[in-house]
Amino acid sequence: MDILKALDKYMLEQSSFSKEPKELYEPIEYILSIGGKRIRPYLCLLACQLFSGDIKAALPAAYALEIFHNFTLLHDDIMDQADIRRGHETVHKKYDTNTAILSGDVMLVYAYEFISKLPKDKVITCLKIFNEIAIGVCEGQQLDVNFETLENVAIQDYINMIYLKTSILIDGAMKIGALVGGASQEEADQLGKYGKNMGIAFQLQDDFLDTFGTTETLGKRVGGDILQNKKTYLYLRAKELSDMEQSKQLLDLYNRVTHNLIEEDNKINEVKTLFNNLAIQDEMHLVIEKYRSAAADALDALELDETKKKAMLDLLDMVVKRKH
Amino acid sequence: MDILKALDKYMLEQSSFSKEPKELYEPIEYILSIGGKRIRPYLCLLACQLFSGDIKAALPAAYALEIFHNFTLLHDDIMDQADIRRGHETVHKKYDTNTAILSGDVMLVYAYEFISKLPKDKVITCLKIFNEIAIGVCEGQQLDVNFETLENVAIQDYINMIYLKTSILIDGAMKIGALVGGASQEEADQLGKYGKNMGIAFQLQDDFLDTFGTTETLGKRVGGDILQNKKTYLYLRAKELSDMEQSKQLLDLYNRVTHNLIEEDNKINEVKTLFNNLAIQDEMHLVIEKYRSAAADALDALELDETKKKAMLDLLDMVVKRKH
Repeated sequence: MDILKALDKYMLEQSSFSKEPKELYEPIEYILSIGGKRIRPYLCLLACQLFSGDIKAALPAAYALEIFHNFTLLHDDIMDQADIRRGHETVHKKYDTNTAILSGDVMLVYAYEFISKLPKDKVITCLKIFNEIAIGVCEGQQLDVNFETLENVAIQDYINMIYLKTSILIDGAMKIGALVGGASQEEADQLGKYGKNMGIAFQLQDDFLDTFGTTETLGKRVGGDILQNKKTYLYLRAKELSDMEQSKQLLDLYNRVTHNLIEEDNKINEVKTLFNNLAIQDEMHLVIEKYRSAAADALDALELDETKKKAMLDLLDMVVKRKH
Repeated sequence: MDILKALDKYMLEQSSFSKEPKELYEPIEYILSIGGKRIRPYLCLLACQLFSGDIKAALPAAYALEIFHNFTLLHDDIMDQADIRRGHETVHKKYDTNTAILSGDVMLVYAYEFISKLPKDKVITCLKIFNEIAIGVCEGQQLDVNFETLENVAIQDYINMIYLKTSILIDGAMKIGALVGGASQEEADQLGKYGKNMGIAFQLQDDFLDTFGTTETLGKRVGGDILQNKKTYLYLRAKELSDMEQSKQLLDLYNRVTHNLIEEDNKINEVKTLFNNLAIQDEMHLVIEKYRSAAADALDALELDETKKKAMLDLLDMVVKRKH
C-alpha cells in the first residue's frame, strides 16, 4: 500500500496538531493516532492515481477527508454516548464533552485548511464538493437520530440516510481525487457513482458486522445497534419479512429496556435468533451484492485500462467482504 | 443603515435554512432570528464599501461571518452551560445538546459554502483568511477555558486570548471585506489592524458591561463573568492594584461557591464594591481608550478620503461607548 505510506508521510510532515494550546490539539493527535482504516483518503488518492499516476497533488485533500471523518467521530460519539472507538476510549470519555466539541470544531476547520492547499485551479471545485459532502453528512446524522424515534422507516429512506451519513463522503472523496488527478467532470462523476454504491455496500456491511461480527475484529461490542434500537437494514428487512407474531416479537424486543450487561446480552441474542429465523444474513448478502454490482457497472462505463479496473474491482470485493 | 438592509435582503433571499431535516435547520433559523448586533457582517461590508462603493460582491462573506459567529455561540453556550442568549433561551436549552452540536456543525459548513460563493478570484485568499479566523477563535475559546482553572494569568495573555476569541473575527471580517472591495493586501492588513484594536476594545467593553451594565440593556443577567469566576481584565487589573488584604478578599470571593440566587447576588455585589474601591471603572476606560486610539492610528495611516475616515472613527466611538 504505497498510497497509504505516502499519506502517512504527508501527515507526519504537516504535524498540524503538535501545537498549543495542547488541551485543544492533543485530543486530535490522539484520535488520529489510534488508527482507523483510512479508507476515505486511500480512495481519494487511488482516484487521483487512476488519472494522473502521481498522487502528490491530492495529498492535502486526502488528509482533509481523514480529518473530516475523524471530526464526525468526535461529535457523533458524544451524541451516541459511545465510550469505545477502535478499541480505545472515545475523546469525550478520555477528556470531556467540551473538549470533544471544541477539538472537533477545529478539526473541521483544518479540513478546510487542507482543501485550501490543493492546486490553485482545483480549490474552488473541490471546496464546493467538500461542502456538499459535509452538509450531507450532517443531514445524514440528523436523519439517523430522527429514525431512532420514528415508528416507520421506509427502506429507501434508510438507504438515503446511509448514503448521506457515510457514502457521500466516499463518493466525494473519489470525485475530488479524480478531479485533482486531471479527470473530466464526467469521469469524476462516474467514479463518484462507483464510490456512492461502494459506500452504501460498505455501510450495509458495517451494519451486518455490528450484529454478526465478533468483538475481536470489530474493536467494539457486538450488538451495539440493537441496544440502541437502531433501525438498520437488518431490522427494517426483518420487519418486512416477519409474520404477525414475529413482527410483534421484534417490536417487543426493540422496546425492551435493559438494566445490565446480562439483560443486554439476552436482548442481543434474541434479536439475532429472530434475524436468523428470517434468514436476514442471506438478505444482507443480496442487498450488498446489489450495490456492489451497481458500483462495478459504474466502473465498467469508465474508459480505463483493464489493470486499473481490475484493481478497483478487487478493492470493491475487499470492502464488501471485510470482516472489520 | 443601508448596509444592514442589503444584508437582511441577501439573507432572506438565500433562505439557506428553510429546509429538511427540520430538526437540523430550525434551530439555525431560530438563532439567526433572535437578533444580535450583526456587527461582524456590517464591518465586512463597510470595509468593502471603503474601497469599491459596491458591497454586493462581499455579501456572501458577510453572511458567512454572521453564520460562523452564531455557530460559535451554539457551541460556546453548551460549554458555558448558558441558558439565556440575547434574552432568549439558548439552542441547547430550547432543543437539546445534541441538536446544538450538530446544527452548529452544519452552520460552520454553510459559512464555508458562502465563502465559496465569493467572486472566483477572491475565494482562495478569503478562504485562507477565514481559516485563520476560525482556528484562532477555537484556540481563543480553549485559552478562555484554560484560564478558568489557572492560578495566574498575565494581562498580556488575557489580551491575546480575547484577540483570538473575539477580535480576530473583526480583524478578518475587515480584511476580507477590503480585499473583495479591491483593496491591496497592504491596505487590507492596515484595515485589519483597525479591526483588531477595535475588536479588543469591543471585548473589553463587553467585559465591562457584563459587570457594570444593566440586565435590560444586556439581555442577560449582570455579573455572569463573576459567577463563572472568569479572569477578565477587570479581575486581573484589580488583582494587580490590590493591597494584600484586598488581594485575599478578591481571591476569597472568587473561591466562594454559591448555592442560590441570593448568594449569587451577594457575591456579585461584593466583587463590584471591591472593583469600585480600586477604581476599576476608570482603569477600564483607560485600557479601552488605549485600543481605541491604536485603531484610530491604524485608520489614519490609510489613504482614504476624510469623509470615509470620519465615518470609521464615529463607528469606533460607537463601539467603545456602547451600553449593550
